Amino acid sequence: MFFRTNKFQYNAKPSAPDPLYAQKLQEVLGGQWGEISVMMTYLFQGWNCRAPAKYRDMILDIGTEEIAHVEMLATMIARLLETSPVEVREDAAKDSVIGAVMGGARVEDVIVGGMNPQHAIVAGMGATPTDSVGYPWNARYTISSGNLLADFRFNVTAESQGRLQVCRLYEMTDDPGVRDMLSFLIARDTMHQNQWLAAIKELEEDGLDQTPAPMSFPQEKELSQVAYQFWNCSEGTESRQGQWAEGPTPDGKGQFEYLADPQPLGEEVTELSQLDPRLHGTPKKPMPPVSS
Amino acid sequence: MFFRTNKFQYNAKPSAPDPLYAQKLQEVLGGQWGEISVMMTYLFQGWNCRAPAKYRDMILDIGTEEIAHVEMLATMIARLLETSPVEVREDAAKDSVIGAVMGGARVEDVIVGGMNPQHAIVAGMGATPTDSVGYPWNARYTISSGNLLADFRFNVTAESQGRLQVCRLYEMTDDPGVRDMLSFLIARDTMHQNQWLAAIKELEEDGLDQTPAPMSFPQEKELSQVAYQFWNCSEGTESRQGQWAEGPTPDGKGQFEYLADPQPLGEEVTELSQLDPRLHGTPKKPMPPVSS
Amino acid sequence: MFFRTNKFQYNAKPSAPDPLYAQKLQEVLGGQWGEISVMMTYLFQGWNCRAPAKYRDMILDIGTEEIAHVEMLATMIARLLETSPVEVREDAAKDSVIGAVMGGARVEDVIVGGMNPQHAIVAGMGATPTDSVGYPWNARYTISSGNLLADFRFNVTAESQGRLQVCRLYEMTDDPGVRDMLSFLIARDTMHQNQWLAAIKELEEDGLDQTPAPMSFPQEKELSQVAYQFWNCSEGTESRQGQWAEGPTPDGKGQFEYLADPQPLGEEVTELSQLDPRLHGTPKKPMPPVSS
Amino acid sequence: MFFRTNKFQYNAKPSAPDPLYAQKLQEVLGGQWGEISVMMTYLFQGWNCRAPAKYRDMILDIGTEEIAHVEMLATMIARLLETSPVEVREDAAKDSVIGAVMGGARVEDVIVGGMNPQHAIVAGMGATPTDSVGYPWNARYTISSGNLLADFRFNVTAESQGRLQVCRLYEMTDDPGVRDMLSFLIARDTMHQNQWLAAIKELEEDGLDQTPAPMSFPQEKELSQVAYQFWNCSEGTESRQGQWAEGPTPDGKGQFEYLADPQPLGEEVTELSQLDPRLHGTPKKPMPPVSS
Amino acid sequence: MFFRTNKFQYNAKPSAPDPLYAQKLQEVLGGQWGEISVMMTYLFQGWNCRAPAKYRDMILDIGTEEIAHVEMLATMIARLLETSPVEVREDAAKDSVIGAVMGGARVEDVIVGGMNPQHAIVAGMGATPTDSVGYPWNARYTISSGNLLADFRFNVTAESQGRLQVCRLYEMTDDPGVRDMLSFLIARDTMHQNQWLAAIKELEEDGLDQTPAPMSFPQEKELSQVAYQFWNCSEGTESRQGQWAEGPTPDGKGQFEYLADPQPLGEEVTELSQLDPRLHGTPKKPMPPVSS
Amino acid sequence: MFFRTNKFQYNAKPSAPDPLYAQKLQEVLGGQWGEISVMMTYLFQGWNCRAPAKYRDMILDIGTEEIAHVEMLATMIARLLETSPVEVREDAAKDSVIGAVMGGARVEDVIVGGMNPQHAIVAGMGATPTDSVGYPWNARYTISSGNLLADFRFNVTAESQGRLQVCRLYEMTDDPGVRDMLSFLIARDTMHQNQWLAAIKELEEDGLDQTPAPMSFPQEKELSQVAYQFWNCSEGTESRQGQWAEGPTPDGKGQFEYLADPQPLGEEVTELSQLDPRLHGTPKKPMPPVSS
Repeated sequence: MFFRTNKFQYNAKPSAPDPLYAQKLQEVLGGQWGEISVMMTYLFQGWNCRAPAKYRDMILDIGTEEIAHVEMLATMIARLLETSPVEVREDAAKDSVIGAVMGGARVEDVIVGGMNPQHAIVAGMGATPTDSVGYPWNARYTISSGNLLADFRFNVTAESQGRLQVCRLYEMTDDPGVRDMLSFLIARDTMHQNQWLAAIKELEEDGLDQTPAPMSFPQEKELSQVAYQFWNCSEGTESRQGQWAEGPTPDGKGQFEYLADPQPLGEEVTELSQLDPRLHGTPKKPMPPVSS
Repeated sequence: MFFRTNKFQYNAKPSAPDPLYAQKLQEVLGGQWGEISVMMTYLFQGWNCRAPAKYRDMILDIGTEEIAHVEMLATMIARLLETSPVEVREDAAKDSVIGAVMGGARVEDVIVGGMNPQHAIVAGMGATPTDSVGYPWNARYTISSGNLLADFRFNVTAESQGRLQVCRLYEMTDDPGVRDMLSFLIARDTMHQNQWLAAIKELEEDGLDQTPAPMSFPQEKELSQVAYQFWNCSEGTESRQGQWAEGPTPDGKGQFEYLADPQPLGEEVTELSQLDPRLHGTPKKPMPPVSS
Repeated sequence: MFFRTNKFQYNAKPSAPDPLYAQKLQEVLGGQWGEISVMMTYLFQGWNCRAPAKYRDMILDIGTEEIAHVEMLATMIARLLETSPVEVREDAAKDSVIGAVMGGARVEDVIVGGMNPQHAIVAGMGATPTDSVGYPWNARYTISSGNLLADFRFNVTAESQGRLQVCRLYEMTDDPGVRDMLSFLIARDTMHQNQWLAAIKELEEDGLDQTPAPMSFPQEKELSQVAYQFWNCSEGTESRQGQWAEGPTPDGKGQFEYLADPQPLGEEVTELSQLDPRLHGTPKKPMPPVSS
Repeated sequence: MFFRTNKFQYNAKPSAPDPLYAQKLQEVLGGQWGEISVMMTYLFQGWNCRAPAKYRDMILDIGTEEIAHVEMLATMIARLLETSPVEVREDAAKDSVIGAVMGGARVEDVIVGGMNPQHAIVAGMGATPTDSVGYPWNARYTISSGNLLADFRFNVTAESQGRLQVCRLYEMTDDPGVRDMLSFLIARDTMHQNQWLAAIKELEEDGLDQTPAPMSFPQEKELSQVAYQFWNCSEGTESRQGQWAEGPTPDGKGQFEYLADPQPLGEEVTELSQLDPRLHGTPKKPMPPVSS
Repeated sequence: MFFRTNKFQYNAKPSAPDPLYAQKLQEVLGGQWGEISVMMTYLFQGWNCRAPAKYRDMILDIGTEEIAHVEMLATMIARLLETSPVEVREDAAKDSVIGAVMGGARVEDVIVGGMNPQHAIVAGMGATPTDSVGYPWNARYTISSGNLLADFRFNVTAESQGRLQVCRLYEMTDDPGVRDMLSFLIARDTMHQNQWLAAIKELEEDGLDQTPAPMSFPQEKELSQVAYQFWNCSEGTESRQGQWAEGPTPDGKGQFEYLADPQPLGEEVTELSQLDPRLHGTPKKPMPPVSS
Repeated sequence: MFFRTNKFQYNAKPSAPDPLYAQKLQEVLGGQWGEISVMMTYLFQGWNCRAPAKYRDMILDIGTEEIAHVEMLATMIARLLETSPVEVREDAAKDSVIGAVMGGARVEDVIVGGMNPQHAIVAGMGATPTDSVGYPWNARYTISSGNLLADFRFNVTAESQGRLQVCRLYEMTDDPGVRDMLSFLIARDTMHQNQWLAAIKELEEDGLDQTPAPMSFPQEKELSQVAYQFWNCSEGTESRQGQWAEGPTPDGKGQFEYLADPQPLGEEVTELSQLDPRLHGTPKKPMPPVSS
């Protein structure tokens, strides 16, 4: 069960309204690599966890922290969409962006070209669980497979893509309040990248999994002949110049082999069989009409 | 530009039709972690690549190989959906699953409960670019950020989740032909996990990026105070028992710190400001009707 | 069966083209709370209705009216996207927004920043069944549960959210023709809010349902101990200050009780059981590779 | 900021595994009217709230409680997907449904026809944020408009549709453990229906809004002539038999009027204007090819 | 504006309930090529039409007819989901499929494996605007481009895919009532295929468009060198054996040319340029951290 | 299996960067009628093909060519998003659009109103598999029914809608490099319209199908009475003025008949039956609470 405090985890106050930036900031709230994604991913990984308790507790602790990140971003966006107190008092809002939205003037329409119209029409200047083009968050962004090595690798990715996006957003504003909050989120992503990398190491040292994941599948059942081959499916061999093309493999179980001119191992393409005619597909030769 | 040969990369022939298994196998064709996802992801990462040529060429080589995996799976599924030659010749199909679908008999309906009805109605017993519950593939499964460390971490994940799913599907059939093809795919996933791990090492050794990704963002701009802290957001401290809670961090730049009883750093939650009344949101106190 | 007349239900003619406003107006055509949503919702509720005939007929009458609303909005949007007759005659369109789209000039590109590019590229300046950010309408906006109290409550909501959005759009334009049509739609939403509220009263007076819906489920089977408790899941007790925290409940069957410091009633969180190893999830302790 | 306890809000333990029921139960976890929907809806309504503090606090308290409901359902589903301890120990699972999934036997395939294949392949027998047909939850289920009367009406609906679905699911099982948990959820839905009805009353008594919502739009600007008319858009007049067709309207501001044979008020349908020829739409008469 | 009669366009009554078939029949109600798709497509094409009036009127007439098809299918599905009157009276429903759903018995669960659980849980045994795997209808199935030749070609396709699916569904049942209704829909699809083919001929004879559509784009601006070439992008030349490889082209403006061994016309693939470093993509060589 | 060359099929280099146009060009890459759609559609039609080999080979040849079109568009878009070399060298980018994005200045924000923010935040100035409003490509755009006449009609449509959109995009730019590439794509669409029309003729002449598709369904089973009737579902008879209303039908099997005043053929709408009370729908008359 969950409880809520009266404070934000960190500051979430812009120095000034900026509805255009609010739209962009939506990406790390409701986008594929945004805070809702990691919140939901970690909570579901934790609730579904069948590994030792330390993993479950660790995962759920981060998941719980991420709810607070969602809270900060939602609040920040709602504030970026505010008009200034003065404007409200005067009931005018003539020279602000919001004023332009409401006024419907031709010239000002230009200014709000980049604003998400749903912020005004649908959400009344509140944050929405959507990304920077207004596409709604969906649960395919939530990854929980029951295999922690596969999932922790996803988590490292999520914290990398997430930190990358927050860094880009940091560059796109010079509002000190916004940058202050982003510097907090970037630091937490630094922590979480490290945390999941450490968790992968822990998992391997605990003997619970290793490369190639899942280690619980007996490797003698895979077609070992092709398990460490690089297939060069193009003209030229620039792809030979990396350590993925020769030398020992990271799992310590093989040597990379480079096939410069790989040949198909499978059968010649042959025709598929005919279907039951009652499916009315195109046959190989003319047939009379038929029905059951 | 691309060209096509007359052969499959590997065998793709089941020993017998099995429409129920065909539905399950769709997961690794058109599901989130299926072959279409890695095909599209690698192609887009390659086409968008601004890193040295060896990376671009390597990425596109794998992307091109993945088209062949999609081809094998689509063909395998189409064959799993076939009736036997005998049945077609007799125009009867009375005691097969397909026969039951077409005949509409009550008892047999039971049997086809697990079959995807769209395989018959929409695709005429062909493969579809959807997953095992019939949900269509979509492009949010394609990841290409312009930052290769973030993307290669995704690629390791994709090959891990993918190999996990193929292993599970291997367990769900005992058809020798299907298992033969799956043993090939599992081996290629072994290769590709190793390949992307090697590529991450190459990228770091080339000095192009490192943890925390992206390294191009100056770390002195993040809030260093919280960059290596574990926040225990729950009762109990089971989450303290892993190497993510103390000791040096994987990036070699800090020490994990465990906050057993973390306190919010942010402001007290305060009220949001009022809105322009023409947005007709709920105000703090009664106001007369107004319109522009 | 349905028939069509040659007239609009009300006027649908703007005073001047305005492609930027056309994009915004899409929200109440193809958005979540737009006219397509209520059209489809009421039609499906009517076709699925198993209640007395007066309900079915009433629901379908509104559903049929809503087709006319969709028609008006689609026409209005198509007209807002038109160039003026003069521009067409001169084959020039140099200084209009459409002209800027077609001309591709740099400066004018700015002007069309807020225009939906699909209006030009995909729809040839016609209306589309999408919302104001271009997201396509989908059938999850259609609600028909077979329980009319639950559904009528949805209908009241739909007419409230819809009227709210149309009012906001009214503020965003000063085109007399557009405002004329919106004043009609706002009035119909006034009617429909009242109509569904009256229908809820009728349903309750007919003895067909009541709070808590559905009344057909025996209330003695619910855990009565928690049926009228407010759980304060946060620090502070501002939430105590409303009539939801004490006094008689609206269903007339209980008294609100405020739990200022609620405690979990459930078990201590315990570990989930192990899985069949052939699913290759992470186990509690190291296990050898296994396959069937 | 949020914290987590070690206990469930209520019990979440089935008496026996039941993977077919697990799929059905997904509806109230990740479906349109499931617990994720109300969790996200209430949290966003709270974070975006600009009304008096008692409303914000009340909304967020329920939102926080709903996280615990999501937690219970996810755990319940994970447990319904478990095999029994005996089966795991024997590494056999021969005669359970899970065993059938893993064994791939023909006969048993029949049994698992109704099981969600993604529970096995994708989630390793964990809960997923999807509904009972496997469709992923998406953020269009989150409603937060900035107008509390419109939103509270949605909330009443959500608790009605939700309670209806839980009652239906209660009828579909006789597992005492599952029914115990459902009796708790049904009771909480009873509370929350009452709570939102009380909140609507509070809002109206506080003078913050009323029917027709939003009251902040001046009613004299709507086309009053049609604001209380019922349009009978069909043959027959069964729709006249309810209190929505005559008598005073619920908002206390008008009288229902029944139009048995309503006539369109709008213009005759006329032709749309021609387009800029460079859009290559179909013109009214043949034109020579043209390009800019 | 639209009106409704009291009669179905044709019969819509099954001889007996059949919930498994109800799920399959959903495909032609709410699937990609179902009746909702053509209803919405034709209505939007008509409302957006800028061609001569006979086209607009014809398109809208069919669109209006399609509403009646949606009505018939929705009703048919609701009836296929009914229990028999006897079962309701006895409050037992022990040996019907619905009874099995409600009773939750293990054996009967098998029987309902193929039933859509949302028919019971979400829709209370009513039709839903979804397809046969429960995926919701969406507006990307609505095609209206402003160019009637492109759109009429889509309409021919829609009536072909639709008739194909209805024919397949005809084969999957032997219920006389269902087959009666389907024989009506198949006949109407026959009409509509013919109608759209005739409309294409009319459009061409009216000089409004022709192949290659749109004819309004001056063909001298396309790269005429490749306008009638077949590129054989594979080993082997089976693709040479059709009239698409040699002889006059259907538009009467060229001759097909077969390139057995086509060569790329474009530049050698070269590297993309570097980005602004503040986007934190992977560069070509190591760079120091930088931020604005 | 597939291989890749080092050259583009045709040129893909703009004369200058243009991020606003890059967003628009996305439509024909990742939109409904873009190159990804035809690539996937043709590949799946080919892999699922059970018709004579010449068809399969022809379909797959085009499918393979389309991968090269996707490649060209992705590269073109990535280049349109580049800053000029000078700007990068100076690390300034002050007066370019990208500079404005990165600088976050108020005035320049206006300029980038029309830019897709995900191009910067998500893709690091790379192409994305989405359309011009940022909506992700999805597999419902892939059509493969097993019936080639139905599918080839779709393919003609796809090449018509596609050519239409490319022509419109041609008009929206005057960049010579972009227009050069588009002139190639337009010509290929000319070829492919002709090719699919020729393939339909071939299919009919081979006796494999004809109008009404599918011809394999015996026409005597359809309700012949309505197979060639035009139903005028509106006031007025403008729709009588085309060759769809009288004369021989295109399939050569009938005569069009125009029903100026069509009457429903179906039963009077009657009430649906009652449901099992345990589904808690609204009944016809009050009933006591009940549960199993």
